Amino acid sequence: MQQNGVIGILGGGSWATAIAKIILTTQPHINWFIRRSEQIEAFKALGHNPTYLQAIEFDTSKITFFSESDINKFFRSSDAVVLITPSPYIKGYLKKVRKSSMRDKFIVNAIKGIVPEENVLVSQYLIEEFDVPRDHIGVIGGPCHAEEVARHRRSYLTVACSDLKKAEIFAQTLRNDFVSCVTSNDIEGVQYASVLKNIYAIAAGICNGLQYGDNFQSVLISNAIAEMNTFINAVHLIKRDITDSVYLGDLLVTAYSQFSRNRTFGNMIGRGYSVRAAQSEMEMIAEGYFGTKCIREINKYYQVNLPICDAVYDILYEKKDPAKTILKLSHHFK
Amino acid sequence: MQQNGVIGILGGGSWATAIAKIILTTQPHINWFIRRSEQIEAFKALGHNPTYLQAIEFDTSKITFFSESDINKFFRSSDAVVLITPSPYIKGYLKKVRKSSMRDKFIVNAIKGIVPEENVLVSQYLIEEFDVPRDHIGVIGGPCHAEEVARHRRSYLTVACSDLKKAEIFAQTLRNDFVSCVTSNDIEGVQYASVLKNIYAIAAGICNGLQYGDNFQSVLISNAIAEMNTFINAVHLIKRDITDSVYLGDLLVTAYSQFSRNRTFGNMIGRGYSVRAAQSEMEMIAEGYFGTKCIREINKYYQVNLPICDAVYDILYEKKDPAKTILKLSHHFK
Repeated sequence: MQQNGVIGILGGGSWATAIAKIILTTQPHINWFIRRSEQIEAFKALGHNPTYLQAIEFDTSKITFFSESDINKFFRSSDAVVLITPSPYIKGYLKKVRKSSMRDKFIVNAIKGIVPEENVLVSQYLIEEFDVPRDHIGVIGGPCHAEEVARHRRSYLTVACSDLKKAEIFAQTLRNDFVSCVTSNDIEGVQYASVLKNIYAIAAGICNGLQYGDNFQSVLISNAIAEMNTFINAVHLIKRDITDSVYLGDLLVTAYSQFSRNRTFGNMIGRGYSVRAAQSEMEMIAEGYFGTKCIREINKYYQVNLPICDAVYDILYEKKDPAKTILKLSHHFK
Repeated sequence: MQQNGVIGILGGGSWATAIAKIILTTQPHINWFIRRSEQIEAFKALGHNPTYLQAIEFDTSKITFFSESDINKFFRSSDAVVLITPSPYIKGYLKKVRKSSMRDKFIVNAIKGIVPEENVLVSQYLIEEFDVPRDHIGVIGGPCHAEEVARHRRSYLTVACSDLKKAEIFAQTLRNDFVSCVTSNDIEGVQYASVLKNIYAIAAGICNGLQYGDNFQSVLISNAIAEMNTFINAVHLIKRDITDSVYLGDLLVTAYSQFSRNRTFGNMIGRGYSVRAAQSEMEMIAEGYFGTKCIREINKYYQVNLPICDAVYDILYEKKDPAKTILKLSHHFK
């Protein structure tokens, strides 16, 4: 992306809303793609997102909105596009985008998930399907609940790009009074970490629902970060410190926080809800549900030992008994 | 220690009570040193510790109690002695013990603190003052709230000893239906980790009291575990995985748990209490208060960069403003 280029946000959920708000603290104007034109009309009328983080007010004169039919125009009018949708929808959106609309754009993935059916990282999908050069792809990671950003609570993001200079240029658009942002060159590791942590948050929720206590929770998380490190090293071996906030911090905030959808979903499973009942009771999608299946598929190739991911898969997709499965898992922990 | 030797517990607090209960699930009999004879009499009459974890019932016919005047007899009658007192008191107890009473004993440190005034690990103190051979010293570590052990919630301990065979023999006395126990040879690292985590839990409490949110908390903890790793490597460089539950897990359970005295203490400081007011309101001693000063003294020698420990020291001992100190600290985080 060029310095001071126009940034476009693709997605209308809470994380998209939080990122839009952050970027508008540093940029005079953004493009914003929200699929349904009714939602855009309501946004303009109310001065805030009608569905998510309603407390965040926007000056809509600084926003150019684009709806479903304008997706190519949206890409062409932006220098950088941040992808922020639930992972199950990203393929559907991108299918409507022409390769030529993405040419020379800096595409930033802020989706904490994997492209469904394809079972590849969003970055791989952009490279393979749209010929986006690897160094034109960025990733936003880090422990950052949208709800806390809305309240201006101090938060830390990481922007990853194989070209650290481009990462730094984009990072500058996110740094403000309450957001710190560091850079990284680990685009694969950051993306996989953001998928895995949702699975581990489901595991943490399941254990909580089964009445395991704080002692056990801390051991689960310790083993989870070690498992994450093993997997990421198998996929993409570079020198990285797994205790960096983009890996460990994101796991902690998701696994311990009351705001976490994945933890809440797991908690319901641990308390005896079926997957379908838990999903219908929750209004938002727990990304980790899809991530669990994707990682299972991807790991058929890498064959890494992932006892926690396997346990969550068995419970969610094989209907294995949560209590027995977690007890068996607990014997692997150290 | 010999296999199946008699184990003695030195200390009458909640952690001592939990460890005594665990050991009595695997051993037919224990010795138990509790300083005040009135507490022993009440214990015998009630069938539980009159002051801590009263819900845990004991068959007192399996316990031989020793009070203040019998400390040498207590050591001589035991094959292994577990030290479990608040760190400020350990020196006072041990001063009354003759070197000859410790000869050939296996001494296990379960104190998560440093010997006051001396500013040395308990293991060093035993070696230097009592000529205990290094391989006769064990350490119990791990994320284990006494309150959860009392409720038989699954918990994980680590026993460290430079002689791994001895660690394994002692570990066998702790393993039961709800306690798992692994071994380690890192006696220095495990002890320093257990001191540092209390300081970081105070930091977590301070930030919570200052209204920082979950995002920030997770970044604080990520930076704390990295700081712990740097310090322990500077003191004793061996191959260790800082994500093991004895390091990271213990930090997590202390920094995130509602049961943590150190976090509660920090929270009061963050909300504006003076150190004295916070201490007088809490009935238990927050170990991290002493640990903060000890690590400061010890680090004068090692000169490791410890921004979080320094910030806590400045707030607790130099009366620096918590809000300003933490804001300054936050700029160091990644």
